[in-house]
Amino acid sequence: MTLPTFADVQTAADRLAGVAVRTPLLESPLLNARAGCRILVKAECLQVTGSFKFRGAYNAVSALPEAQRARGVVAFSSGNHGQAVAAAARMYGVPATIVMPSDAPAIKIAATKAQGGRVVTYDRWTEDREAIGKALAAETGATLVKPYDEPLVIAGQGTMAMELVEQARALGVETIDRVIVPVSGGGMVSGVALAMEALSPATRVASAEPAGFDDMARSLAAGTHVRNEPGGRTLSDALMAPTPGDITFPIAKRLLDGGYAATDAEAKAAMAIAFHMLKLVVEPGGAVALAAVLSGKVDCAGRTVVVIASGGNVDPAVFTEALAENASPF
Amino acid sequence: MTLPTFADVQTAADRLAGVAVRTPLLESPLLNARAGCRILVKAECLQVTGSFKFRGAYNAVSALPEAQRARGVVAFSSGNHGQAVAAAARMYGVPATIVMPSDAPAIKIAATKAQGGRVVTYDRWTEDREAIGKALAAETGATLVKPYDEPLVIAGQGTMAMELVEQARALGVETIDRVIVPVSGGGMVSGVALAMEALSPATRVASAEPAGFDDMARSLAAGTHVRNEPGGRTLSDALMAPTPGDITFPIAKRLLDGGYAATDAEAKAAMAIAFHMLKLVVEPGGAVALAAVLSGKVDCAGRTVVVIASGGNVDPAVFTEALAENASPF
Repeated sequence: MTLPTFADVQTAADRLAGVAVRTPLLESPLLNARAGCRILVKAECLQVTGSFKFRGAYNAVSALPEAQRARGVVAFSSGNHGQAVAAAARMYGVPATIVMPSDAPAIKIAATKAQGGRVVTYDRWTEDREAIGKALAAETGATLVKPYDEPLVIAGQGTMAMELVEQARALGVETIDRVIVPVSGGGMVSGVALAMEALSPATRVASAEPAGFDDMARSLAAGTHVRNEPGGRTLSDALMAPTPGDITFPIAKRLLDGGYAATDAEAKAAMAIAFHMLKLVVEPGGAVALAAVLSGKVDCAGRTVVVIASGGNVDPAVFTEALAENASPF
Repeated sequence: MTLPTFADVQTAADRLAGVAVRTPLLESPLLNARAGCRILVKAECLQVTGSFKFRGAYNAVSALPEAQRARGVVAFSSGNHGQAVAAAARMYGVPATIVMPSDAPAIKIAATKAQGGRVVTYDRWTEDREAIGKALAAETGATLVKPYDEPLVIAGQGTMAMELVEQARALGVETIDRVIVPVSGGGMVSGVALAMEALSPATRVASAEPAGFDDMARSLAAGTHVRNEPGGRTLSDALMAPTPGDITFPIAKRLLDGGYAATDAEAKAAMAIAFHMLKLVVEPGGAVALAAVLSGKVDCAGRTVVVIASGGNVDPAVFTEALAENASPF
């Protein structure tokens, strides 16, 4: 097993230049006052397809030999990775088949189809998406692009950290004390950690997960893979991987400084804050890092903390509920 | 009367460097497909205080001699300019008094207070905010920062155009065919037009206004100041100025290529599209330029059009209504 390195992140950045959005690093004085620390929000919800996933997906599709790429790509995904792979495939004019849980947000299924992807649904609770994805790939000769346990994907996600280090410097930040990253299988956090190790080694990188799905935090604490209890439910449909990946975990174990868990209520409160103070649409899973800070779980008084707002693909009903449950923060 | 020039916009850009957000110029392939043209969205809702107004306000406050600035500033505003002046004053540690209509969105009043501004309300339909603002300024020795008919404010707003020209070039755009700008008194559109004349003279700049408040479009057509009919109502509370400014109109008359009007329903549809495809929170008045394009009013087939999404300070109830009235666009 070959682990990706910072050099792979740099190669990914070259591939993504002019294709991915250089998402802004946003700050709100009112948000800082509320949190008691300096919060910089990396707005990956503004990325192509509405989530950071485009970085890794495009890097992986882009790296395929042309003849192989022409046979198409397959992905299994709760929604964001699928949209991203479909969009990357579309840019190269090759077919994409996306395996999605039948209970994925309607908007993610519809958006994936709008990106030209063929959607195949499965039952999240009884079927194995990985097996379905592999079978489809074998059938068609298409290449399976894994959502997180894939060096090219990890390297692609890491490019956001190269940007945020530069952007923080431009804002006059001397030291980024912490970066908090939403985690499902760990692709984003391991890519980010590789880049931060190279560019800002003093920064502590930590995971944020939904309560009941904090397998990364618990695996880090245990020093070995721990699985989530089956049967749990969360609004953060994007963050339901059962355990860290085989490639992502060794990186996380070496480089991460623990992790946090946020409840659905805390994620919705963070979504409402992002609406009011940042004017960003953030999905529940995209809001867990901000939620971890705003709910006081992160010891950040007086520090500078970057939180990744990783996606914005949320059904209007859930968004409306988050606004209704959380009155104006002013 | 001295009209501002592009040199004033450049000076403003120097003052704003590192203080204002360099807002991203966003693109969505699905949005392009829907509109039949290439739409680039300048996301000024991500600006400090949630609207472009911070650019002009900070430029004006920053340009005051120190002793004068220390006596404080006064502004009259439907909400966005007031928040912006309050934030700029706070950065300089000087007091700000903001005169706001009593029916301004609660969220704008609350946010202005949160920025440290003293809020004085008036009745939009019976009282003269300009007179109230002038009286307050005379009382306290504070300086009145006008919302649009002020060269320093116009120059500040123009800085967004310097950015968008560079950003469009980075996206591989050879010619920006049109820029569509939400208009109330005309401060933003005249600043943008001055910068586009210098940097991209082939670009046509046009106004977008709420239906019933399209005094700029009608004034341009008539070649002279025309006033809106009194008593009209619009969701775009930020765009209710009765007629173009004395300073903004001569610039607009010389440089603009007409204007468009969007209904409340069209503005809400554009807000929903911005939610789904761009992950931006845009207020009704901030959405009229996008609404003008999406409702087919702008002849833009095959062209590259920049629309300014000028603000995101919207009450949750209005935002929720916009989402409920417009089903998923995918």
